Amino acid sequence: MKKFINHVDDYLTESLAGFAAAHADLVTVNVEPLYIVRKTLKPGKVAIISGGGSGHEPMHGGFVGHGMLDAACPGQVFTSPTPDQMLAAAQAADTGAGVLFIVKNYSGDLMNFEMASELCEMPNASVLVNDDVAVENSSFTTGRRGVAGTVIVEKLVGSFAETGADLQACRAFAERVTARIASMGVAFSSCTVPAAGKPTFALGDDEIEIGVGIHGEPGRRRAKFETANAIADELLTAMVDDLKPAADAPLLLLVNGLGGTPLSELYLLYHAARWWLDGRGLSIARSHVGALTTSLEMAGASLTLCALDEEMMRHWDSPVHTAGLRWGM
Amino acid sequence: MKKFINHVDDYLTESLAGFAAAHADLVTVNVEPLYIVRKTLKPGKVAIISGGGSGHEPMHGGFVGHGMLDAACPGQVFTSPTPDQMLAAAQAADTGAGVLFIVKNYSGDLMNFEMASELCEMPNASVLVNDDVAVENSSFTTGRRGVAGTVIVEKLVGSFAETGADLQACRAFAERVTARIASMGVAFSSCTVPAAGKPTFALGDDEIEIGVGIHGEPGRRRAKFETANAIADELLTAMVDDLKPAADAPLLLLVNGLGGTPLSELYLLYHAARWWLDGRGLSIARSHVGALTTSLEMAGASLTLCALDEEMMRHWDSPVHTAGLRWGM
Repeated sequence: MKKFINHVDDYLTESLAGFAAAHADLVTVNVEPLYIVRKTLKPGKVAIISGGGSGHEPMHGGFVGHGMLDAACPGQVFTSPTPDQMLAAAQAADTGAGVLFIVKNYSGDLMNFEMASELCEMPNASVLVNDDVAVENSSFTTGRRGVAGTVIVEKLVGSFAETGADLQACRAFAERVTARIASMGVAFSSCTVPAAGKPTFALGDDEIEIGVGIHGEPGRRRAKFETANAIADELLTAMVDDLKPAADAPLLLLVNGLGGTPLSELYLLYHAARWWLDGRGLSIARSHVGALTTSLEMAGASLTLCALDEEMMRHWDSPVHTAGLRWGM
Repeated sequence: MKKFINHVDDYLTESLAGFAAAHADLVTVNVEPLYIVRKTLKPGKVAIISGGGSGHEPMHGGFVGHGMLDAACPGQVFTSPTPDQMLAAAQAADTGAGVLFIVKNYSGDLMNFEMASELCEMPNASVLVNDDVAVENSSFTTGRRGVAGTVIVEKLVGSFAETGADLQACRAFAERVTARIASMGVAFSSCTVPAAGKPTFALGDDEIEIGVGIHGEPGRRRAKFETANAIADELLTAMVDDLKPAADAPLLLLVNGLGGTPLSELYLLYHAARWWLDGRGLSIARSHVGALTTSLEMAGASLTLCALDEEMMRHWDSPVHTAGLRWGM
C-alpha cells in the first residue's frame, strides 16, 4: 500500500486537519465528536446535514458551505459516522429552523441517522438517497445504494434551503429531487482501505466491474474490458429504463470520477454518454464532469442523470461556495 | 490497459469533443488545427496563450476563460503541439494588443513556440516556466522542467492581463512571477500513455520516485516508500533551498495531485507540508489542494510554493471562470 500517510490510525485525523487548515475561511472541523460545520451560519435557515464513511472526498465535507450543506459528519473510511457525531453536528448547525438529514442508503448510516434523529431535540427530518440502479440489496444495503446522485440532492436542496424554505418544504423538495435521479458506475480497479492495507477486491487485467458500489460492492456483472461507448450504453440503458425521463425533460448529466481515473478519460466518457443520449432524443441541459463522489483511488467512473424541472435547474445554477463545488461567488 | 477509450487514435479527439460540449458556454474547440479559445474575447486585451502535450488535464485547456488563458494548444498525449496550432490560436485570440505565450520548458514546446513566434505577424512575447527544482536537464528538457507552477503563472498573469496591461508589462510580470515559484513531485505509480499501451516506467511495490517529472521522467532518486511527513520534508527542503523565500513572504502552497491519488491523501500531504513550513516560521497566505497538472492516472503529487507579494496575492484572489479553476464568478 503506497499512500500519503504517516500512520494508518492518523489517516482521517491528519487529512481532516489539512482540510480544515486549507479551508479555514469556509469551515470549522470539530474533533470530538468529529463534524465539519460552516464557519458562518445563517440564522433561521433550515440546517442541511449529511455524512457517511470517509474515502468519498470531496463528499461530504467538501460540500459544506453556502448553497449546500451546513454540516457534515465523516465516519472512518467506509464506516458510518456515529449518532453522537450527527447529534453534535445538528446542535452546532441548527439556528432555530430545524435540521434536514440527507442520508445515503447504507444500513449503518440509516440506523445511526435514525438514532440521532430520535435524540435530537430540535425539529428534524430525513431524506434517503438511493440513486444507484445497479442492484437491489448489496453488501451494506437493503434496497438500492446511495451514490453520486447525493451530490445533486445536496446542491439542489442546499440552494432551496438558502431561500428560507421551512423544514417540511425542504423535505418535500428533497424527496421530489431524489425521485428524479439515477446513477450507475463501473470500476477498472479496486481501492485499498488504509486500515485493511490491501485491495478490497481483485480484478483481472482485462476485467471490469459493471455496476460497482462506491465501497467496492459487487455490481451487476464482472465483464471483459469494453469500449467507452459500450460501457456508456450499458450504464445509460439501465439508468434510463429506471428513470424514464420525459422526452422534453432537461437532464443534468454528471460524469463522476471514482478517484483514480484522469479527467481526460472522464471527458471522453462524457462524450460517449452525450452521443448516446442525443441519439435517443434526450436533451442535456446541464453537465458536470469531475470527481465528486470517490472511492479512494479506485479507477472507474459513474454516470448520474437527474431529470430537472425549471425550479431544480435554478437551484443547480445558483451560487455555491464550498471546497468541492464553487461557482457564482 | 484499462481506460475509458474507444480507439487509441481517437482518444484526444473524443476527450476534447466532450470537453467542448461540457463547457460550450466558456470555450470553442477548433479541430484543424487543434486549439481551444475563449467563447468571448476582450478587445484590446493581451491574449495569454499556453499549450503543451495532453495528459495533464485540466492543464491547459481547462484554464481557458476569464482571468486565465485566452487560448490553449493541446498536443497529442505527452507530445508538443505544432507551430501551426500555436499560430492559429494566436490569430484566433489576438484582439490587437498582441500575444503572450506561456511555455513550459521542454525542448519540443520551446522549439515550436519559438517557430510560432517567428511566424506570428502580431506583436508577441514568451515566458518560459521552469519551476521543477528536482533535476537539471531531463529526458525532454535542457535546464529545469516546467510543471504545476505553470498554473500559478497562468492564473496571476491571466488576471494581470485582464486589467488592460500591455504586452511588455505582461511579460515583465510573468517573468517576475516565474522567478518566485518552485515545485517538486513524487510518483507512487507510473502512468500509461494510450498509444504505448503499457506503463511508462516500473516501480516496485515499495518504491517511489522522488522528483518525478510530469511525463514520468526520472527524478532525484528511487526511494523506498516513506511517510507523508518524510516525503514533504524531502520535497520542501529542496524547494525552499532553491526559492529562499523571505521569512515574511506570504506563500502560496499548492498541493497538486498527479491523477491517481485521492483528495483525502492530498489533504494529508497538505497537512504535512503546512506543519513543515510552520516549523520554519514560513507563513502560508494562500492554499490550493487538487489535481491541476496531472500525468494521466499517475499516483503521486507535487508541491509548489510561490512567494507572493501584495500585487500577486490580489491577482491570485481575483475572479476566475474556467473549467478547471473557478471562483468569484
